Amino acid sequence: LFVMADEALFQFLHNEVIQYIYKSSEHGEMENGRCITKLENMGFRVGQGLIERFTKDTARFKDELDVMKFICKDFWTCVFKKQIDNLRTNHQGIYVLQDNKFRLLTQLSAGKQYLEHAPKYLAFTCGLVRGGLSNLGVKSIVTAEVSVMPACKFQVMIQKM
Amino acid sequence: LFVMADEALFQFLHNEVIQYIYKSSEHGEMENGRCITKLENMGFRVGQGLIERFTKDTARFKDELDVMKFICKDFWTCVFKKQIDNLRTNHQGIYVLQDNKFRLLTQLSAGKQYLEHAPKYLAFTCGLVRGGLSNLGVKSIVTAEVSVMPACKFQVMIQKM
Repeated sequence: LFVMADEALFQFLHNEVIQYIYKSSEHGEMENGRCITKLENMGFRVGQGLIERFTKDTARFKDELDVMKFICKDFWTCVFKKQIDNLRTNHQGIYVLQDNKFRLLTQLSAGKQYLEHAPKYLAFTCGLVRGGLSNLGVKSIVTAEVSVMPACKFQVMIQKM
Repeated sequence: LFVMADEALFQFLHNEVIQYIYKSSEHGEMENGRCITKLENMGFRVGQGLIERFTKDTARFKDELDVMKFICKDFWTCVFKKQIDNLRTNHQGIYVLQDNKFRLLTQLSAGKQYLEHAPKYLAFTCGLVRGGLSNLGVKSIVTAEVSVMPACKFQVMIQKM
């Protein structure tokens, strides 16, 4: 019950944030791109904060792949109550994280007509991953795409410094 | 670890929401009262949603006091990972719920100068309680006050219909 409730709390609040930001946008203050950016930035700060609390007693990571595995397992489980289903890399700084049943999409109906709404349900999480990685010393660009709901892929491009 | 992380996720997102709403306000679009109202309304909808999921298999409540006890125990534990410390009533429709260590205040510093910021950290939760009660058939007005941080009291005034 309580695990479900925790998830629900996050999902509901996440929805409220999306609604609120897009409502301001309707008043002509922001276009879609700026809403996405705002959601992404919020996610970034939350991701940073979470990693700060998480990794207090976590051993140092041995390499970039190790960091990515932590994101796919521990971090994802904490936020979404499941692990990433598949992690792929080209070994040149691009990682693709696939979640076959992404929690923030399962509430949307599966019809094709909802696909266009998917980006606003992914932006916060893109930021979350980017913020988490950033606090682990890995600078990145994170994008997401949906092919068949509620499955989605997050692509992480590492920015070499 | 994961219970802490869940809490942290909610706290961080809650903070982001407050920051975001107050930032819009700085641009002169809203004064403080309207920010509080927006936070309260968000809380209301989240509270409604949570109760909808929670009480699917919960036995019916026998009276108003029973509903209040549910809010103080199960509902509070789900959201804040602890119970309300003290519940008082005048038996005429007023209930005072005291939380001696309210989670959304513990992050604020304890100094007196922070007291003025307390209302914005309480508004969402006032709405949360009001929304939860509303979905359990109890119409109310919920206000909050802080005397010594991080302790605070939520006053619920039942609206007889």
